[in-house]
Amino acid sequence: MFSHVWRWMIHGFFAVCLLVPTVLIGQAGEPSERKFPTMAEILAAAEPGDWRPLDPENTLYLELAAGRVIIELAPDFAPRHSANLKALAREGYFDGLAIIRVQDNYVVQWGDPKAGDPQAARKIQRGQKTLPAEFERTIDDKTPFTPLPEGDVYAPEVGFSNGFPAARDTKSGVMWLVHCYGMVGAGRDNAKDSGGGAESYVVSGHAPRHLDRNVTLFGRVIQGMELLTALPRGRGVMGFYDERDQLVPIRRIRVAADVPAAERTDLEVLRTDTDAFRRLIESRRNRRDEWFVFPAGRVELCNVPVPVRQKSGPESK
Amino acid sequence: MFSHVWRWMIHGFFAVCLLVPTVLIGQAGEPSERKFPTMAEILAAAEPGDWRPLDPENTLYLELAAGRVIIELAPDFAPRHSANLKALAREGYFDGLAIIRVQDNYVVQWGDPKAGDPQAARKIQRGQKTLPAEFERTIDDKTPFTPLPEGDVYAPEVGFSNGFPAARDTKSGVMWLVHCYGMVGAGRDNAKDSGGGAESYVVSGHAPRHLDRNVTLFGRVIQGMELLTALPRGRGVMGFYDERDQLVPIRRIRVAADVPAAERTDLEVLRTDTDAFRRLIESRRNRRDEWFVFPAGRVELCNVPVPVRQKSGPESK
Repeated sequence: MFSHVWRWMIHGFFAVCLLVPTVLIGQAGEPSERKFPTMAEILAAAEPGDWRPLDPENTLYLELAAGRVIIELAPDFAPRHSANLKALAREGYFDGLAIIRVQDNYVVQWGDPKAGDPQAARKIQRGQKTLPAEFERTIDDKTPFTPLPEGDVYAPEVGFSNGFPAARDTKSGVMWLVHCYGMVGAGRDNAKDSGGGAESYVVSGHAPRHLDRNVTLFGRVIQGMELLTALPRGRGVMGFYDERDQLVPIRRIRVAADVPAAERTDLEVLRTDTDAFRRLIESRRNRRDEWFVFPAGRVELCNVPVPVRQKSGPESK
Repeated sequence: MFSHVWRWMIHGFFAVCLLVPTVLIGQAGEPSERKFPTMAEILAAAEPGDWRPLDPENTLYLELAAGRVIIELAPDFAPRHSANLKALAREGYFDGLAIIRVQDNYVVQWGDPKAGDPQAARKIQRGQKTLPAEFERTIDDKTPFTPLPEGDVYAPEVGFSNGFPAARDTKSGVMWLVHCYGMVGAGRDNAKDSGGGAESYVVSGHAPRHLDRNVTLFGRVIQGMELLTALPRGRGVMGFYDERDQLVPIRRIRVAADVPAAERTDLEVLRTDTDAFRRLIESRRNRRDEWFVFPAGRVELCNVPVPVRQKSGPESK
């Protein structure tokens, strides 16, 4: 017999709620009367309006042989890059290109393996090869921001904006996206404006926050990270695949809106501007699951998950 | 033609220096006269005495079909667990057991797949199944601590002690190891003293710092992390392998001192109590590599690498 109960680190379950939240929700009990409800209890008590559907016009499907990686774009922070990624996807630029770099505890990167050879490199048709940097933007009243109670080592104020981890500096009046696990950015050369998204990376390890405000982040992987992070590490310098047969082909990247409805993955994301999400933050600051001996009383931005679930069908509404 | 120069995110190279530092050192130029030398320059200028050899009596080799994972034990922080891990290794407890859990962005865990079945579970001979928790220890003058200039979200003071990421609270007089990427801990059930190291995990994602002071950390993987992190994610709850054929067999775990000298992996680790290491911390706080536009001026503990290299042979001394 092989199956038995594993109880230890049960709290760890919530670390994957980003990917399998429906299981979590299915297991949650009634909301607790305790001062500090658990995340499972908070999600079980969430109203339908606490969730938002993914906008298909704002969602990319990166299709690998192993499955689909789903990226939500962040036009509030990187409007030009988001538009360019859609233009590149719509001209089929990525179709047949590859994962070219897997560096342990750092990034997984994709693009044209022949980008360095002007003769062989794929030509861009309607998209842009490079764009002005979108490292940060001005704070305004229209852009929501749910702060955590404390800042962190890298920023005076951190929190969430429309589902994305972000930071603000009210003194200088700017805000920016933050390099947490799963965030997607546009690779660039030494010149600040040399990226555009034709070559992109996703953070696959401990948050490399020193990259904040140094690269344009334009989205976040909200499903399928494990299809990228379990790939063999590249043996070349910086984790690049140095032999052609190591490359992992990209079948195609499409804008979800262009995909027939029956082939879409309908997901909902927990809104980050609600009381439910504020309660979730509190539950992560004070972990009261039975397992915990010492609740930290604090939480770092990249340890706060933004839950995702399958969209409810009409029958379950 | 496939090979060409990839320049972007060249700074990223240093994120793996933990694993392939010899390449880094080979590429480093002369020490710079600039105010902020790079990490490569600092390592190139380091003296032989800035490095320490791994103590074979304090090192475990976890042998998989794919290769060797090397763990340095932390007897300063977890003396009982470190001794128990050696006792378990020496009785052959781990030989033929398995990697049983790979949860994306969290932990890789190993132990007895049949641990939940008293009839089938492997019996421990000379080691201990459980031990009193070693979550924290008192600060004393004998235990070195190189602090970072700033604390972090989770602790008033963070830094390094004999190569391990650690935190201190001088008010309460205690210090503890910190859950950075690569740190190894003893899984436990809900009871505080229910772990002992027979089932262990390594942090394989963003630092789950809420586990600090909740689990006994007893070591750090200093080579071979990619053999664990590239494994397929478990499809069971919390990333457990829910089918027997997913298990990844452990050939054996040995204490390096018990391995014939010719079969050992001779590594040196950069000492963390030296001026060279303090300069390294500064170089990570202020990234002046040409690629950077915005040097953060700060660094979070888990983004400071502790370089490792092949031990110099007599011919190169």
